[in-house]
Amino acid sequence: MENLRDVAVVGVGMTPVTSGSGRSLSQLFVEAATGAIEDAGVGRIDAIYVGNMMSGFLQNQEHLGSLMATALGKEGVLSYKVEGACASGGAATNAGLKAVMSGLEEIVLVGAVEKMSGYTTPHVTAGLMMAEDQARVGGTGVTFVGLNAMIAREYMHRHRVSHESLAQFPVLCHENALTNSKAQFHKKISVTDVLQSSLVADPLRLYDCSAIGDGAAALILAPLERARELTDSPVRIVASAVATDVLSLHQRAEITCFEGSRKAANRAYAAAGLGPNDIDILEVHDAFSVLGVIALEDLGFAEKGSGVQLLMNGDCSRDGRLPTNTFGGLKARGHPVGASGVYQIAELTLQLSNRAGTCQVPNANVGLAQSVGGIGSTVAVHILKRGG
Amino acid sequence: MENLRDVAVVGVGMTPVTSGSGRSLSQLFVEAATGAIEDAGVGRIDAIYVGNMMSGFLQNQEHLGSLMATALGKEGVLSYKVEGACASGGAATNAGLKAVMSGLEEIVLVGAVEKMSGYTTPHVTAGLMMAEDQARVGGTGVTFVGLNAMIAREYMHRHRVSHESLAQFPVLCHENALTNSKAQFHKKISVTDVLQSSLVADPLRLYDCSAIGDGAAALILAPLERARELTDSPVRIVASAVATDVLSLHQRAEITCFEGSRKAANRAYAAAGLGPNDIDILEVHDAFSVLGVIALEDLGFAEKGSGVQLLMNGDCSRDGRLPTNTFGGLKARGHPVGASGVYQIAELTLQLSNRAGTCQVPNANVGLAQSVGGIGSTVAVHILKRGG
Repeated sequence: MENLRDVAVVGVGMTPVTSGSGRSLSQLFVEAATGAIEDAGVGRIDAIYVGNMMSGFLQNQEHLGSLMATALGKEGVLSYKVEGACASGGAATNAGLKAVMSGLEEIVLVGAVEKMSGYTTPHVTAGLMMAEDQARVGGTGVTFVGLNAMIAREYMHRHRVSHESLAQFPVLCHENALTNSKAQFHKKISVTDVLQSSLVADPLRLYDCSAIGDGAAALILAPLERARELTDSPVRIVASAVATDVLSLHQRAEITCFEGSRKAANRAYAAAGLGPNDIDILEVHDAFSVLGVIALEDLGFAEKGSGVQLLMNGDCSRDGRLPTNTFGGLKARGHPVGASGVYQIAELTLQLSNRAGTCQVPNANVGLAQSVGGIGSTVAVHILKRGG
Repeated sequence: MENLRDVAVVGVGMTPVTSGSGRSLSQLFVEAATGAIEDAGVGRIDAIYVGNMMSGFLQNQEHLGSLMATALGKEGVLSYKVEGACASGGAATNAGLKAVMSGLEEIVLVGAVEKMSGYTTPHVTAGLMMAEDQARVGGTGVTFVGLNAMIAREYMHRHRVSHESLAQFPVLCHENALTNSKAQFHKKISVTDVLQSSLVADPLRLYDCSAIGDGAAALILAPLERARELTDSPVRIVASAVATDVLSLHQRAEITCFEGSRKAANRAYAAAGLGPNDIDILEVHDAFSVLGVIALEDLGFAEKGSGVQLLMNGDCSRDGRLPTNTFGGLKARGHPVGASGVYQIAELTLQLSNRAGTCQVPNANVGLAQSVGGIGSTVAVHILKRGG
């Protein structure tokens, strides 16, 4: 297509992810957004794209566009919400990118927020099922963790992969989160800890699962020519692809890989003119251990059934050839669902501009982030590249 | 800005608006979307932008992106939800337009849906309050109708406008809806009928208020060069502006006009190089009689306090100089909240391509649609132009 306009991330902001912030959606959002605006050093923003999944159910609050613009003191600008279940952050980034590419807006704030604390676990669990088909699946009483447990069971059986192997994913994330001051958990865990933690939905145990958390993350996007004026280290978004799959697991022939991830990744690689071998650093949507491993396969880094090899080899460690979830991922940085996709891109931006501090990896030029809604039903893949 | 790409509406679809469809969100959406796809004669779509406000609260269902793509048999494509309270339809159109303008997608479906029937009125009323600040305003117990009643009272007092005068708005809408087979109400009403209808929230009476309804509407958008291949009567979107205001009424110095409407209109006029005098046909967000009248003023068609003159003069009638809400508007075509903004643009498209049938007005070349979320807190203004 003609007339494509290069877009860069020129500022990022994040709140710590916490298990109970005691703060409102607005307070969380404003902290992240203010951080991003200050980081970018911009005085004005033209538009706000708000990523969020559950505010209608949990806070009985919609209209976050105007609410957040008001809280930020930016009322007047375009502001609306973008929702794609747990991929809401990735979807909001896609919408913000298009706004800049369209030429209609120049300096765009993408901010995503979720507040999950302060409610009973059954209530939040019911809210998470909004990512599945309520009429056909929610009504059966199955939970979102239960659906992922089926995937884990099938994956382990089909590919003869042990729980011990899958458990390496949360072990890696907890290791990486130790140096991330904004992570939800700062606790080193072992494979044995994972296998001995409480059973949540067989075979998934507590440490296989991301936790309930509050958090917000934000990005400032600008055309590359403007970005060069704002920063010496612009990070370009060279691809943004969103793909859906049929919504429900029971509609699919195969549940140990996700067509939505494959399609989104293939579209993103094609748009960027890159392939898996060009990716130096990775953020995947590890809501459950097995999903992190499947992501490595769906995104083209490992053959089907062999994703765990990358973990065993040390490839995914910060000093490996494909550092993965370097700030702790969904499991340990935290998973405030609608916000996680923006955390990923903020973290990649810090890595690719050498500003990741105690989480920094060396020599990363190209990063990929995968944000997933439902059971692989909506997948947003972004590819970011250092420099401009 | 450089590189702006012209975008046209090449197909539209709508369900009838009904007080109780007995149908699901998916069923409503698919009817409208299929209609738009058939109307456009396109075999493939690249993306779906779903407008909806209340599914999280009423249906405990999010992730409409994947749900609707699946229901439509279009899984695989990009699909996510856009929400801006009652302006969700306008916001989704804005997002879809940017997708085409960005060059990332070519044939885009914008579909908006709301299902409000099947719940108690208090429950739906609580859902509508999600458009306001729940923590600061919802907690007082005031309803959305109550807030609009305050506006009506203040407007009537400040500008010495009678209820009889305001009542001309719903009378006009009910008149226009008589020939719209998809309208919720086919009932001619008089000013006396309005004034004698049940009191809902003083001074608002039943016929001052749009009703609870189910419905879906859809558009197919394409670049103008592609549109010319698809249709002999493309209708261009020459401006799409969204503006916010501070969310809540109590935060404003003035409640009888809406800064969000003025800003969105001024931006749209500037983008199109047009002014109020260039507008031949109008769709305004008449959720309550007084809002229809205020819209005429905020959009630049009348001085503050004198909007009713346009009604008295007959200017807003189908044979007047500014035909308004020619299919019946929110009051009589119906207001399935998140979908109304797309109904407006679908109706303008039919008018501007001479396909409005029994609702057709003569000689309209330029149309404007105003979609409002909350109490003027998010306003989307689109300007459409015949031909290309």
